[in-house]
Order: sequence, then C-alpha cells, then structure tokens
Amino acid sequence: MRTAAILIGILTLAMFIVCSTEGVERSPNGIALPQDFASWQLVAPSYRTDNGTIRTILGNKAAQEAILSGKVNPWPDGVILAKIVWKAQVSPDWQGAIIPTDFVHVEFMVKDSKLYRETGGWDFAGWVGKDLEPYGKDRSFVEECFACHQPVKSRDYVFTKPAFLPKIETK
Amino acid sequence: MRTAAILIGILTLAMFIVCSTEGVERSPNGIALPQDFASWQLVAPSYRTDNGTIRTILGNKAAQEAILSGKVNPWPDGVILAKIVWKAQVSPDWQGAIIPTDFVHVEFMVKDSKLYRETGGWDFAGWVGKDLEPYGKDRSFVEECFACHQPVKSRDYVFTKPAFLPKIETK
Repeated sequence: MRTAAILIGILTLAMFIVCSTEGVERSPNGIALPQDFASWQLVAPSYRTDNGTIRTILGNKAAQEAILSGKVNPWPDGVILAKIVWKAQVSPDWQGAIIPTDFVHVEFMVKDSKLYRETGGWDFAGWVGKDLEPYGKDRSFVEECFACHQPVKSRDYVFTKPAFLPKIETK
Repeated sequence: MRTAAILIGILTLAMFIVCSTEGVERSPNGIALPQDFASWQLVAPSYRTDNGTIRTILGNKAAQEAILSGKVNPWPDGVILAKIVWKAQVSPDWQGAIIPTDFVHVEFMVKDSKLYRETGGWDFAGWVGKDLEPYGKDRSFVEECFACHQPVKSRDYVFTKPAFLPKIETK
C-alpha cells in the first residue's frame, strides 16, 4: 500500500516534469516559433481552391509599420510574416460560405537582408499540426520554400499584398 | 500681393480645419466606429462563394478573453466582433488562390445582453466603402441584420466559430 502511494507520487511528479517542460522545438534552421504570433495584426486573408485550405497572414510590429509607411518592397529587416493555415469546409450554417476547420500549420518568413542574403533576404520556418512539429529534417527545407516564392521575386518574394484597411478618424 | 498672402493663409487654415475635423459618422443607432478595430486579434477568415467576397473576423480584447476561456455561447457583455469584407479575386500570381481586392465594408456586432435584449443581446453597425459611410438610414437596419443571423440563434447569433490557434510554450 505504501509502495503504491510512493509509486503514484513518483509518476505524478514525472508527468508534471514532462508536461511542464513540453514545448515547441525550434525549426531545423534555428528559428524559434514566435510566442505571440496569434496576436499579430492582420495583413490579409486568402483561400486556396487548389488544396482546399483557408489562410490568414499576420505581421509583427515591424511588418505593420512597413505597411503603414508603404515600404513593403522590399520589406525592411526585422519583419516577420506569419501564415496560419486551416483546412477549409463549406459552412453547415451557410452553404455559400467557406470557413476554417482543422488547423494545418503555421509558416513564417523572417527578413534579414544580410543574414539571409542567399535566399533573397528571407529565412523560412514552419510548424505542422496541433502539436506544432517543426517542418523539415534539416536546413535544406529552406530551398524548397524559396523556390516556391520565385514567382513573386519582383515583390520581395512575398505573395501577399496587404489588404486595404481604412485609416480612421471618428467624429 | 499682401492680400493674396492673407487669402492663401486663410484658405490653408480653412482646409486644415476641414481636414482635421473630417471623420467617420456614427451609425444611425448611435454606435461609433471603434478606432482600433484593425489591430484587434484574429478570430477567423472566411470566403463567400455566393457573393465573391473574402473576409476576416477580428475580436476586441473581451472577445479574445472569451475565446481563450471557451465562453463564446453566449458571448459575454463587452464583446465586439468586427467583420472586414473585401471583394475576392483570383491571384494573378497563383491561379489556385483567392485573395482580397477592393475593400467593401466593415461590420460589427456589439454585445450587451441588457441594452440590446430585443435583438438577442446584440447591436449591429456597418460602415461602407473606403469613405466609411454608415450603413442604414435609420435604426431599422438593425432588424435586417438580426433577421439574417437567425440561422445561428443557437450559437448566440454568431456565425463565426473561432478558428483553432495553438497555445504555445517554446523551449
């Protein structure tokens, strides 16, 4: 009886240690998942008919400042763009609407024109699924990302054009 | 010459006064456009196949707290949801992608279960086009909004289910 109590105690402690140190691994290229990305400001939504996903692109503070000052080609160093992707489905409440369902992944573009000169000034990183497993076995996945962004080389490799948001002055 | 200088001075001052007091009118039901809505946090994107628009729903701080604590049916008093709507187009850079183009309008749902008891605890407001003209000639437009939200009465009249966003702990 006492042994059982001790065993339960040890197991509880072990579970606590495992759970409390559980976290999100870095991308193989060393990029850490930005903790606060879900609170970044809106850049634009998009919907992919070719793979049935719906997305929102958010930007960190540097990205927002770049958008407000119209300096998005090239985007300045320090900018991080986050693309959050969900599987898309027809809304059960409104047949003419496509809405997000399962979370697929979150992907980032990180701008540093010197550090990432060989890939257009950008580094890339992604985390897949609800468990946020880092994308890629080693650094080579970056080449795959960069290759895919070649069609928009003339826009600093960024597909997304920031969606118009009104500047407001109320009365 | 002196008269011309004075006239220019007066005109400049007049333009300054006009421009600096230019702003966004209140909705006919008295709701003021929330100044900071574009910086609110993401709730979900959506795409309407039936009217060719793409949208993002954002929520104020009360909405974010409600989402984090799972209390979204009913949504608590103080919650404001913003729906930003753009015309949708096929991306010229990626044929399988639908992206935003012209800004259409921004619409709000404002929760106060006592104040707006007659319309399910919600008031509604909208501002149309880049000039942000208030929607509706008088208060009666609210009935139109409320009627349209009846299919989701069982979810506190809100179509949008907050999209999954991972809670993050990095290591």
